[in-house]
Amino acid sequence: MSTITTKEEQHLHRLILFSDAVFAIAITLLAIEIHPPEHWTGVADLFAQMQTKLMAYAVSFGVIGIYWISHRRTFSRLRKADGTLDILNLLMLGLLALLPLTTELLWEAGAASAVVVYVGLVASIGVAHAVAWAYAAFPGQLTEPMGAAEKIYVLLRVALLPGLMCGLTFLSIMTRTPWGWLGIAVIVAGLTTVNRLMSRGASPLIPQTAED
Amino acid sequence: MSTITTKEEQHLHRLILFSDAVFAIAITLLAIEIHPPEHWTGVADLFAQMQTKLMAYAVSFGVIGIYWISHRRTFSRLRKADGTLDILNLLMLGLLALLPLTTELLWEAGAASAVVVYVGLVASIGVAHAVAWAYAAFPGQLTEPMGAAEKIYVLLRVALLPGLMCGLTFLSIMTRTPWGWLGIAVIVAGLTTVNRLMSRGASPLIPQTAED
Amino acid sequence: MSTITTKEEQHLHRLILFSDAVFAIAITLLAIEIHPPEHWTGVADLFAQMQTKLMAYAVSFGVIGIYWISHRRTFSRLRKADGTLDILNLLMLGLLALLPLTTELLWEAGAASAVVVYVGLVASIGVAHAVAWAYAAFPGQLTEPMGAAEKIYVLLRVALLPGLMCGLTFLSIMTRTPWGWLGIAVIVAGLTTVNRLMSRGASPLIPQTAED
Amino acid sequence: MSTITTKEEQHLHRLILFSDAVFAIAITLLAIEIHPPEHWTGVADLFAQMQTKLMAYAVSFGVIGIYWISHRRTFSRLRKADGTLDILNLLMLGLLALLPLTTELLWEAGAASAVVVYVGLVASIGVAHAVAWAYAAFPGQLTEPMGAAEKIYVLLRVALLPGLMCGLTFLSIMTRTPWGWLGIAVIVAGLTTVNRLMSRGASPLIPQTAED
Repeated sequence: MSTITTKEEQHLHRLILFSDAVFAIAITLLAIEIHPPEHWTGVADLFAQMQTKLMAYAVSFGVIGIYWISHRRTFSRLRKADGTLDILNLLMLGLLALLPLTTELLWEAGAASAVVVYVGLVASIGVAHAVAWAYAAFPGQLTEPMGAAEKIYVLLRVALLPGLMCGLTFLSIMTRTPWGWLGIAVIVAGLTTVNRLMSRGASPLIPQTAED
Repeated sequence: MSTITTKEEQHLHRLILFSDAVFAIAITLLAIEIHPPEHWTGVADLFAQMQTKLMAYAVSFGVIGIYWISHRRTFSRLRKADGTLDILNLLMLGLLALLPLTTELLWEAGAASAVVVYVGLVASIGVAHAVAWAYAAFPGQLTEPMGAAEKIYVLLRVALLPGLMCGLTFLSIMTRTPWGWLGIAVIVAGLTTVNRLMSRGASPLIPQTAED
Repeated sequence: MSTITTKEEQHLHRLILFSDAVFAIAITLLAIEIHPPEHWTGVADLFAQMQTKLMAYAVSFGVIGIYWISHRRTFSRLRKADGTLDILNLLMLGLLALLPLTTELLWEAGAASAVVVYVGLVASIGVAHAVAWAYAAFPGQLTEPMGAAEKIYVLLRVALLPGLMCGLTFLSIMTRTPWGWLGIAVIVAGLTTVNRLMSRGASPLIPQTAED
Repeated sequence: MSTITTKEEQHLHRLILFSDAVFAIAITLLAIEIHPPEHWTGVADLFAQMQTKLMAYAVSFGVIGIYWISHRRTFSRLRKADGTLDILNLLMLGLLALLPLTTELLWEAGAASAVVVYVGLVASIGVAHAVAWAYAAFPGQLTEPMGAAEKIYVLLRVALLPGLMCGLTFLSIMTRTPWGWLGIAVIVAGLTTVNRLMSRGASPLIPQTAED
């Protein structure tokens, strides 16, 4: 019995190691395609010329960072891994590894359609992450003991929220309106209320969330 | 006694860590050579222009992903590592690291001979992986306790099957005939039957396979 | 109780793994943009042509190496990690990943303003590292048990000193004066004196420092 | 007492993780600069055109692989790490990370002076590795309990031998004479004799070597 448990834990451990390596490579490769301009005069001119690329770098670094944090948070709830989780996780990493390329799109074209592709990819990573968590939580039964309500809460707050926030932030920036940020505020307020309602009924939710 | 065992386990642990890093880098580098087209009008045009590259990316990501899963599965059966396994594993990784380059071939040439090279490389990785497992299982005696029949079954199903499936899938796609997929169906059916026959005689095979 | 501790330790472990991967990739990518010259006659000519690039490589390898050592030293004092540390650490890594790009600046332009940007980035990494440590040591309470004086000492010596030394070394090289190195000597002498004064009052500081 | 030991073991663990990542990245980056030729007709022509690059790739993959194995073998003898080992190990990695660049030299120039630079770098990595081991074995006292004779034997056989073998193999290939390989045969025979003589006096050497 205990040997089998150990094997599944090793499986989970190796899956996390592999994912971390892919996250780390994708985040570091973001900068590799950025090159300094050929002619520049002084620091101010350099930053002016590189502004778009550095902005795109910062945004994509933030996006991958947020997904790494989400991944760490969902996977810290798992007890074991299986072959299906391997495949769903690979799918997510396969989309993530396209971010450096899509970031190039952003700084080269800068057009509205480039933003659509970018936000579409960010949202797809979020959906793939949510699917991996949903599989692990429900049919796969790979998590630590936790109720169905909490599993759904983690799905919404940890897996889906980052992608949604990225999309809404972009919407606000591109349309120069506050609607996206208003949407984020409403969602965060809603989830906080749900959490409070849930924690009234099921007290074990509170320490879990606090620890996270 | 226990110190030596620990050392060999540490050897295996470090071999797995190193392999995982190579897998992760190879899979993430697949996308680094893809650049957006210089001129494009709208999202549909962008995808039309990048279709070949994205297809080749998806295929190679799948191939490396399948080999990572195979590697994880065969190495989870090992108890220790030795110098010969280091070398055989390096040989496999050396072929794997050529996949990004060969993927470029695929999207640039797209000719039948590019596919031959690609499938040849994928098959070579499979063979190298199978050789590493065969060494570990028989002369090296590096596995957990398991019978010879099961070792051969793992050799066929875990080590050789992925390469074979990649090859047959390509054959089906390139010749636009179902023969490749028919071949896969026959092989999977055959292996399932073998597994059933084997498990009648040797019951410990069943939980091992289920756990995997 | 013990389960929650384990989770926070796992969090710290995964944060360190991820950081190590980013450090390793950034340090190895430094060389990837260096290419041999197209025409060269003999070894001496090759080195003459590549001198600037190899110098810049050596400096940046040293900088990343020093920050890796600092990171290892500060993080070896931590007992656990939290979400805020994730974000502060990501911020530091995001700046670090810009070093290969900024190293290109150094060898291409070689102008005084390129040095300003380079030293500015090195200093920013140091500040980001110091902020992460300051958070972990004071509001986050993530360290092993240690006094406030020692926490501040680690902040100055481990987190801030490397950036300061890089900056002062550059200053000495660029201005061809010894003022930068004089500054380093004064700082090191000052910190050694502080350490001696502190260790008179609080003896547990000595073994900790010696072990480090 | 036990906490300090754990810390030094963690230090060693993190140093190994970081080194493995650099090894893995360097070995995988070897292939990234190789691109398929623009025009080629059939598989035979493709291989004919890429022959030099693939040969250089194979040689450098072998060199990094051999050094990884050497590194694994020397570091498996260590019990702990310290700041000086960090720096000596970084020095070795800094030279290793130049191998992809130097491999480019090899296939682009192919001249005798390119081979000199390449062999010089391979030998420097070996020397840096030997220096790291010598420090760990003698002044640093970081190894598991072992005699001075065995420490020197490991220095010669594990740390210096790989670089020597690479150099002598190149010498044989370039001069088209068997002198290099003859040299290897003499060295291996000599070391085997030394090992036999040593093991007569000090029996614990035998199981250690066998296990390695």
